[in-house]
Amino acid sequence: MKRTSLGLKTPGGMKDLLPEELMALEQGEEKILSLFQNWAYQKVLTPTLEYGACIQPLEEEENPFLKLFDRQGHVLILRPELTTPIARMVNTRMRSSVFPLRLCYGADVFRYSPSYGHEFRQLGVELIGSPSPVADAEVIALAVEALQEVGREDFQISLGHMGIFTGFMNELNLTKEFRGKYEEMLGRKDYVGIERLVRGENFESKVEETLLKFPHLHGKEEMLQEVLTLSEEPSIKNAVESLRQVYSYLQDFGVQEYVSLDLGILRGFSYYTGVVFEGYVPGVGFPVVEGGRYDALYEEFGDDHPATGFAINLKALVEQTPVSEVISADVLVYGDDLGKVIQEGQKLRQGGQRVEISLEPMTASEAEKLAEEKGIQRIQQV
Amino acid sequence: MKRTSLGLKTPGGMKDLLPEELMALEQGEEKILSLFQNWAYQKVLTPTLEYGACIQPLEEEENPFLKLFDRQGHVLILRPELTTPIARMVNTRMRSSVFPLRLCYGADVFRYSPSYGHEFRQLGVELIGSPSPVADAEVIALAVEALQEVGREDFQISLGHMGIFTGFMNELNLTKEFRGKYEEMLGRKDYVGIERLVRGENFESKVEETLLKFPHLHGKEEMLQEVLTLSEEPSIKNAVESLRQVYSYLQDFGVQEYVSLDLGILRGFSYYTGVVFEGYVPGVGFPVVEGGRYDALYEEFGDDHPATGFAINLKALVEQTPVSEVISADVLVYGDDLGKVIQEGQKLRQGGQRVEISLEPMTASEAEKLAEEKGIQRIQQV
Repeated sequence: MKRTSLGLKTPGGMKDLLPEELMALEQGEEKILSLFQNWAYQKVLTPTLEYGACIQPLEEEENPFLKLFDRQGHVLILRPELTTPIARMVNTRMRSSVFPLRLCYGADVFRYSPSYGHEFRQLGVELIGSPSPVADAEVIALAVEALQEVGREDFQISLGHMGIFTGFMNELNLTKEFRGKYEEMLGRKDYVGIERLVRGENFESKVEETLLKFPHLHGKEEMLQEVLTLSEEPSIKNAVESLRQVYSYLQDFGVQEYVSLDLGILRGFSYYTGVVFEGYVPGVGFPVVEGGRYDALYEEFGDDHPATGFAINLKALVEQTPVSEVISADVLVYGDDLGKVIQEGQKLRQGGQRVEISLEPMTASEAEKLAEEKGIQRIQQV
Repeated sequence: MKRTSLGLKTPGGMKDLLPEELMALEQGEEKILSLFQNWAYQKVLTPTLEYGACIQPLEEEENPFLKLFDRQGHVLILRPELTTPIARMVNTRMRSSVFPLRLCYGADVFRYSPSYGHEFRQLGVELIGSPSPVADAEVIALAVEALQEVGREDFQISLGHMGIFTGFMNELNLTKEFRGKYEEMLGRKDYVGIERLVRGENFESKVEETLLKFPHLHGKEEMLQEVLTLSEEPSIKNAVESLRQVYSYLQDFGVQEYVSLDLGILRGFSYYTGVVFEGYVPGVGFPVVEGGRYDALYEEFGDDHPATGFAINLKALVEQTPVSEVISADVLVYGDDLGKVIQEGQKLRQGGQRVEISLEPMTASEAEKLAEEKGIQRIQQV
């Protein structure tokens, strides 16, 4: 039956990948996953779909998930990320693993996102079972090397800590409403909006000063000293110390120059508890790397493990790089006797050549034309 | 929030892939896709979701699809196969390709199938734009070599032709109801059921003889002679001749010994129009290879192209082969000074080694224990 115009389209936010586009994506994926494996991360894969009860135990009204019902009436969600499904997997079939456990993945994830598209490829790692700042530094260093592996040098990693923001919010004793607005503006780096919001309230001067200063707490290590002048709160001091350690280990990994501290980084997923980081490349308006420490997630699935990790948005990264050339066949075999054409093709393939055979008898000039159109360098008549 | 027991499960018919399971699957996939590319097939990928209007323009009551609604209220279907999405793609973004066009893919497909599971990996090829029997023979030969590529020798390919079955059904002028029952039993090779069904009707002896003989029309080329004794119908004679040609070219490809003729093969998808084939391996109760000619599908998407192809159920094939060993790190680096551990790890990685570093200071005996548990052969203290 003839398709309607809708039947000729890909769904909104989703794309076909032609040979040259897919090749660029797969070359990037292969390089990065091979790097992950050289750092002793083992590749795993979870299903495309998860129960809603896994991804989102408390249904929220607004969410970016693609959902359906299975035949038993359970909500299924197309995986929006892999950190949660991997926590489920490690707490079930992989419970007897030796920890710390290093896992990696490459898989499509699905969200109604106006910037990312609705289906995009994520490559990521999870380092499970270590609270050490070395673990955080390892995954950040690995993210840096992954970006270098696909030929990028022009990226910037920003590193923050959830505990510092949360510590200040608690210390300043702000209303939930104010906090929500402030956090949202901070996430968008809307400094003008923050200034207007803060000055619109009647805070005492110390509170006002802190709230106005917070969005500008970024830079190198010296900045952490400034944070400590704003508060004596132990939870904030601990978070600052933890951030300082991670940053120092980045020097040992040889990647510190790529990383700036930025306390305004607040990762969208609610599971982050410690250091958080984002990687940006020019020309992409959202982070191509997102990661951090999430020490409370595993306990929700059973065994309690501290954990840290990141994901790279491969599609956004690769769309920035020039499209590869598609590999053509090495030789086109043609002739009048199709049986002989087939036999010659099989012989050349056994010799390791990439062979296209003609499926109909054709003349020399037809074969030349076809080879030229298909970019095949050599023609063989039988 | 603590997950319920449902939140710890994978959805029905879907599975996690642990490192060793994923590695076995990916090794098979790499071998087969590399073979496809050596036969000049270029890899493409379509989105995980398609509009219902693409996959199923006329909604049928019973269908095995996983469906959802997008935010505009359109039906989306998780792709149940890739032949139809690729027809859509070729008729839109790839319309200006040079034909015949050879495309291949490796992707997960989704169906509520009691035997396959609900998500399984398919590898396949499409040869678009040629009506030649050489094209059919090429894809069948490629299917044979793909099975050999993953170490199978114990498979059997059955080859039939839709035109022969359809020709007989038309010639014998059977009711739609009888035809449906007969076809369904033939698909299941339920010879006892067929005998009962046919003898229960009051057919004239010629019709009865043909209907009882048809399920047993399998074997090598001689069998085709037998078919011609049952009918003079031109459409049947043409189909037999086309099947004979394809079978003969299989000899030139050097794969005829793996292929038997079987006129009872009727592929489930309605788009097949010519030769159809199935591949079986011992221990799997359904075909691991399914393919055939589908000359009417492209016209439904715009430009009319004859086409042929197949898909391999990689999961079913690989679940039959022994699980791979997971690759461990080459060396575990440990010591009291974590900065030095990191630096040594980085140095060894630059030298091409697969390195795991300790994230906490540890003693020699702790390091030995960890290395043993993780299968790491070498330990280095710094």
